[in-house]
Amino acid sequence: MESVQGGVTAPIGFAASGVSCGIKRRGKDLALIVSNRPAAVAGTLTTNRLRAPCVDWAEKILRLGKARAIVANSGNANCCTGVRGERDCRSMAEWTAGALGIPAQEVLVASTGVIGQPLPMEKLREGIRAARVQLTRTGSHSAAEAILTTDTSPKEIAVHWKIGGGVAMVGGIAKGSGMIAPNMATMLAFLTTDLQADAGLLREVLREVVPDTFNAITVDGEMSTNDMVLLMANGGTGLPPLKRGTKVHRDFLEAVRTVCRHLAREIVRDGEGVTRIFTVRVTGAAGRAEALKVARQVANSLLVKTMVAGRDPNWGRIAAAAGASGVLLRPERLTIRLGKKIVFQKGEPVRLSRAILLQQVDHPEVRIELDLGRGKAEASLLSGDLTEGYVKINAKYTT
Amino acid sequence: MESVQGGVTAPIGFAASGVSCGIKRRGKDLALIVSNRPAAVAGTLTTNRLRAPCVDWAEKILRLGKARAIVANSGNANCCTGVRGERDCRSMAEWTAGALGIPAQEVLVASTGVIGQPLPMEKLREGIRAARVQLTRTGSHSAAEAILTTDTSPKEIAVHWKIGGGVAMVGGIAKGSGMIAPNMATMLAFLTTDLQADAGLLREVLREVVPDTFNAITVDGEMSTNDMVLLMANGGTGLPPLKRGTKVHRDFLEAVRTVCRHLAREIVRDGEGVTRIFTVRVTGAAGRAEALKVARQVANSLLVKTMVAGRDPNWGRIAAAAGASGVLLRPERLTIRLGKKIVFQKGEPVRLSRAILLQQVDHPEVRIELDLGRGKAEASLLSGDLTEGYVKINAKYTT
Repeated sequence: MESVQGGVTAPIGFAASGVSCGIKRRGKDLALIVSNRPAAVAGTLTTNRLRAPCVDWAEKILRLGKARAIVANSGNANCCTGVRGERDCRSMAEWTAGALGIPAQEVLVASTGVIGQPLPMEKLREGIRAARVQLTRTGSHSAAEAILTTDTSPKEIAVHWKIGGGVAMVGGIAKGSGMIAPNMATMLAFLTTDLQADAGLLREVLREVVPDTFNAITVDGEMSTNDMVLLMANGGTGLPPLKRGTKVHRDFLEAVRTVCRHLAREIVRDGEGVTRIFTVRVTGAAGRAEALKVARQVANSLLVKTMVAGRDPNWGRIAAAAGASGVLLRPERLTIRLGKKIVFQKGEPVRLSRAILLQQVDHPEVRIELDLGRGKAEASLLSGDLTEGYVKINAKYTT
Repeated sequence: MESVQGGVTAPIGFAASGVSCGIKRRGKDLALIVSNRPAAVAGTLTTNRLRAPCVDWAEKILRLGKARAIVANSGNANCCTGVRGERDCRSMAEWTAGALGIPAQEVLVASTGVIGQPLPMEKLREGIRAARVQLTRTGSHSAAEAILTTDTSPKEIAVHWKIGGGVAMVGGIAKGSGMIAPNMATMLAFLTTDLQADAGLLREVLREVVPDTFNAITVDGEMSTNDMVLLMANGGTGLPPLKRGTKVHRDFLEAVRTVCRHLAREIVRDGEGVTRIFTVRVTGAAGRAEALKVARQVANSLLVKTMVAGRDPNWGRIAAAAGASGVLLRPERLTIRLGKKIVFQKGEPVRLSRAILLQQVDHPEVRIELDLGRGKAEASLLSGDLTEGYVKINAKYTT
């Protein structure tokens, strides 16, 4: 499995574009991804109860499992916008369908940005026309730019591998930055492949991959109203449909995992104000839910996040966060590791020199591990530190 | 019910002191509060599973319901310190008991500060001696200073009211700042009264008052390992014991509520980096737990906190946080108020000018209200904004 250029347009039969239509004050804000032939599609959607109409729209399409295009705007989430918002979402699908000569029911819509403001529909109509004109087989990077909000750089990857006499591809782009928490889909991520697969199989693949990738990251513990991960398969390779249990199926799963893992990681790295990332691994839990509960409490703890930001080996904050998780921990069974060193074990702190402790947090990726001593389940989360940068960005991200 | 000077030493028969014994780099770090006669005591303790030995010690004493003194140090939480920590806590009680000529089982111990470091016991032994010497009837302010960590100012109040031919008093001091979240006791707060009451009645009073005061605040969603609220009643007025259902009982309840409300509010105001406070009131919930769930999600949301910091009327963040709470909200039944204005109702945003919206967040205490339209239960929380100050303090609060 090798990494290649090209993102979502690396797989055969996909074109994309990104244009600026004036929703954001500057920069590209409208992306289009199109398959030149029918494609199967699967996705995971936000579990937020106040979700945007484009999520409702996606839910309907995902039930049918067929799509030809994704149109996505940044700068405005079109959420909490009432009946008008529903109409606007449908218009986006219809205009895109019209421009491409395909049915509206095969156009997925995604929006990200400010909540509660109406979309500037005239600008969007123009933008969709322009995006149609600019569609190219190398447009992934432009599309990746056009879905960004406070992200500082586009997130893009593609992998390919040999299969029979040919080559199969999986590509993806994503945006994240704020409102990132481990709960179902947690941002926008669009994946494409030129293998042929039915929607049911694509769904299984996402169900397998998303929990350990996009759902295993957190920036600020917030869950967006508009999150979605979409995976389109158009069969552009001309190979026969994927069958479960084959090597091709396993390779495909691995490729999707690689793409999702890379994009999820990039999202945390580029999280608002994030300067350093850290992993929280919980082992010895009585069950997966329990492991996740402790991991989330630690990964989202403001005191742990600022500790990582300050390169301060103040592991008591890890202990306090774990203890506050609600899980019935027993200190005498708990082991806490910071970096490569055990700092707390059997109810006792481990004596380590200040120099050794400082070494444990002086890594670009700090490792925190908790063994609860209660069972065999485990969970891992990737999180970012909390810096003044986060506050600066979010005290000024004005409506 | 009038406010008076004197804090915990306003009630008859209580003396206090605060001294510097060198646990912290500078400032007072050891407080002593003593009743000159036997007193009943009740308290609420942290629910954190990794709690300090002083919390275990307090639990034993509270079961008996009798105490004469509280000794409290700041700068070191004596938590996650193993067997040595348990021994050190007991020594603090024993040395204080020795200095005062009372049984160790009547000395409550409280510690606050860094986790996982051993207490400097020689300094504490000296400190306890000095605190004993400096006990005065006007020592409340010194004691209030000595329990502070990153707090910027001491928190103190006393109220009195006429009762029969005399006057009854309730006084209190508290410390908060970081690790403040709405979960059982959430910081250190010591209350005294010169009324006579048994421990059972005191417990009822705290159970009635704490949920809406100390447990209705949040600074950073963290729960400390050492939190406690203690209430001592020594009968110094010479009045007969409090009886349930009497006017004196009602007045006492009101006095304790006033003291707790004031101290809780001061804790949020002086929260780490807090520049502005805000209330989150949730009404129309199907039950109290549900109301609290939504209120907590909104009150602890980093995006809502930074919105308040930035005076940005970006109410979509309130909607997104509520939607992420896990409560089965229906947008068409939800009403969101910011300040005095409805901003979202019946699934639709309310059109308001930017000027009007800005007015709603331009208050020293921003009001956020959500009516879930699901029932009649409600809950309120008081929270503080998130600023660069919080990050600065916590990326540098070094072990």
